[in-house]
Amino acid sequence: MVQKFKQHIASSLCFLQGKKLLLACSGGLDSVVLAHLCDASDLDFALAHCNFSLRGSESDDDEHFVRELASTFEVGIFIKQFDTEQYAKEQRLSVQMAARELRYKWFEELLQAIEYDYVLTAHHADDSLETFLINLSRGTGIEGLSGIPEVNGNIVRPLLPFSRNEIMEYAKSESIQWREDSSNASTKYLRNKIRHNVVPILKGLSPSFLQNFLNTQHHLGQTNDLANNHLNELKSRLFQQRNDDIEIKISELQKLQPLDAYLYGLLNGYGFIEWNDVKDLLTAESGKQVFSNTHRLLKDRDYLILAEIAPEIKGTYYIHLNKASGELPIKIQLEEVESFEKQGQNVVFLDKEKLNFPLVLRNWEKGDYFYPFGMQGKKKLSKFFKDEKMDLISKEKQWLLCSGNDIVWIVGRRADERFKVEESTRKIVKITWLT
Amino acid sequence: MVQKFKQHIASSLCFLQGKKLLLACSGGLDSVVLAHLCDASDLDFALAHCNFSLRGSESDDDEHFVRELASTFEVGIFIKQFDTEQYAKEQRLSVQMAARELRYKWFEELLQAIEYDYVLTAHHADDSLETFLINLSRGTGIEGLSGIPEVNGNIVRPLLPFSRNEIMEYAKSESIQWREDSSNASTKYLRNKIRHNVVPILKGLSPSFLQNFLNTQHHLGQTNDLANNHLNELKSRLFQQRNDDIEIKISELQKLQPLDAYLYGLLNGYGFIEWNDVKDLLTAESGKQVFSNTHRLLKDRDYLILAEIAPEIKGTYYIHLNKASGELPIKIQLEEVESFEKQGQNVVFLDKEKLNFPLVLRNWEKGDYFYPFGMQGKKKLSKFFKDEKMDLISKEKQWLLCSGNDIVWIVGRRADERFKVEESTRKIVKITWLT
Repeated sequence: MVQKFKQHIASSLCFLQGKKLLLACSGGLDSVVLAHLCDASDLDFALAHCNFSLRGSESDDDEHFVRELASTFEVGIFIKQFDTEQYAKEQRLSVQMAARELRYKWFEELLQAIEYDYVLTAHHADDSLETFLINLSRGTGIEGLSGIPEVNGNIVRPLLPFSRNEIMEYAKSESIQWREDSSNASTKYLRNKIRHNVVPILKGLSPSFLQNFLNTQHHLGQTNDLANNHLNELKSRLFQQRNDDIEIKISELQKLQPLDAYLYGLLNGYGFIEWNDVKDLLTAESGKQVFSNTHRLLKDRDYLILAEIAPEIKGTYYIHLNKASGELPIKIQLEEVESFEKQGQNVVFLDKEKLNFPLVLRNWEKGDYFYPFGMQGKKKLSKFFKDEKMDLISKEKQWLLCSGNDIVWIVGRRADERFKVEESTRKIVKITWLT
Repeated sequence: MVQKFKQHIASSLCFLQGKKLLLACSGGLDSVVLAHLCDASDLDFALAHCNFSLRGSESDDDEHFVRELASTFEVGIFIKQFDTEQYAKEQRLSVQMAARELRYKWFEELLQAIEYDYVLTAHHADDSLETFLINLSRGTGIEGLSGIPEVNGNIVRPLLPFSRNEIMEYAKSESIQWREDSSNASTKYLRNKIRHNVVPILKGLSPSFLQNFLNTQHHLGQTNDLANNHLNELKSRLFQQRNDDIEIKISELQKLQPLDAYLYGLLNGYGFIEWNDVKDLLTAESGKQVFSNTHRLLKDRDYLILAEIAPEIKGTYYIHLNKASGELPIKIQLEEVESFEKQGQNVVFLDKEKLNFPLVLRNWEKGDYFYPFGMQGKKKLSKFFKDEKMDLISKEKQWLLCSGNDIVWIVGRRADERFKVEESTRKIVKITWLT
């Protein structure tokens, strides 16, 4: 196996030679064998071990084992302990996913901190096949069947073309020791069933089954690349940025066939789950919305509007003059000034004596009206919004600055006539919105 | 099962109701059950049975069985006997593929002849899963994993959401008789192994395995549609028709990533197999070619030229005046005329007395030269072709009309000065190329 590994490095992964490599080592069979192979191939590597503190003293024994391994090879070692269960709780992740996230985050930090070039992990062909079958049994799409690439940014998986058997036989022939891992809780049962009952029979169907499988995964990955290129081209054509939001013309979406697949492809990065609701939105009445955890999609006449859900900032806030206000959702500055300067979109000047302090910052409510600056009479805010061609999301995000119940400034858009500076004005307040 | 079948027809396949259906019935379990279900659902169907004559009296007994079945249901029956082995030999196909081709061809003819609307076949979910696993074991791409669609043109597979178990149990509960098929030679061994050893274990992984698998196949099919839409858009942008051939700018191809996948996607419809050779063509020297059985791809400076391989028409042909010529590769008409008319690209007028009949029609040979009409002196054909900016394939296809060894007309391009009509000419021959 050493020969085959060396050849594989020399032919497909020659960019690893002479680089500083960080080998992710759990102490299990695969990563220990990878360490032996890297040593035998004169690669320049250090070990990195995550102690996820999930199995008490067993975890600590693993850590100890990897320390010993590093000293055998006379290479550097980096160790980090994680409170994985705590992190999983905080981030609402499964323990598996939490461990995964912590692991790759730390590797990324380490690479930067110690100026290493690549992280090596010990995934092999059987891992890929098992994951393929797990995903197949649960129902998946091309992403779930394509497998992980051998080279993905600075993460490299040099054992991907090798089978578990090859790795095991090499370990035995070289009397290599490793630690058995009793974790992998969530998928262990299913994965073991697949490993012991399904995979051997599949491999028995054809002597080149595993190689054929890897080729198939490679082809699927490439088809996925094609589909993604297509979707990215479409996005750059159909997704129009409007302020913070994205506007998508519905008539353009409706030209796409198969529509389900396009909606999923274009929008699955935004966390939506109810795809039938998303599809129904195309023909729904204006104002209908579908929510994900992070985004919402709004039908607004001929468009869908895709908006990030901002952290909850609705409510009522008080802004004092010459006194610290509490934390505000937007930066509003009040100051008394001597004279009238240039008024603008983000700056208005008002007659101090007409205002009741503290001023009130709040969102739009049904029935709101104001007296538009420079005009006679009052106007409903709903009418003003319509004239400004504002979509629902922009309306909801709009802040109003009020004096008691009266609107003083539709922030960033229009001041109120009633509070304007006049000849009779004795004290001027300058209000600035710092965007 | 009847209930579930009726519901499936009513919800997903309601377009079948009231239509004239042709049910492909081998006499095996699946198609016999399908016939019973169609009967129970009051669908308007007739049976169509192919006798492939592959298993002697067994084949004839199947035919007899299906005849009986039709009379039980009091529906029409169409039967055709094929000499499958003969056809397989002629078409250089496996017996399996030959049977498949004959079967679908005949269905197509039948539909038209008897004015039926759809063909129903009895493929079910286990068939799809088995085919998926067969292809996986052999190595495949997304096409091999996506499965057959439930509705494909006028072919409908209403049992696709049903498992073999459901079908079998229904047959048993209704005491339905069927014929066991001892054929399926080429894949039978592998398919049976998969059916009996792999599928039951996979289904044991999750109670909804088969349904999850069908969903996965559906997703893969849709991703494949996306990728194909992308490739078709690319083709219509990059493939430029030039005469009979297609011209593809190499610099445009080289922008595509992953290049392998794009080359395969754009060109796999033309029968190429040696994809590394195709890729190498991009950087090869001008004149290099790669062949498939039906096409060739030629590197010609900044372009790849994709050309159909025409039936072999090279050679030397003789064209008589006032006498039938043998079969010619192109239509050339010689006639003596009274007067000079309008000369054109496809028509020339020559001095009859300068010509030696029969004229000779042949392809270009190295060293050929002629005396261009309207010019003084001779010119090498290689130089003429270059000046005309002709690519290699156009040069090869170019026909020359000669009098003995002398070129009379570069057909469709340029006549020769030596044979032109002059004041002294007494007899004129009009030569027309009928394109």
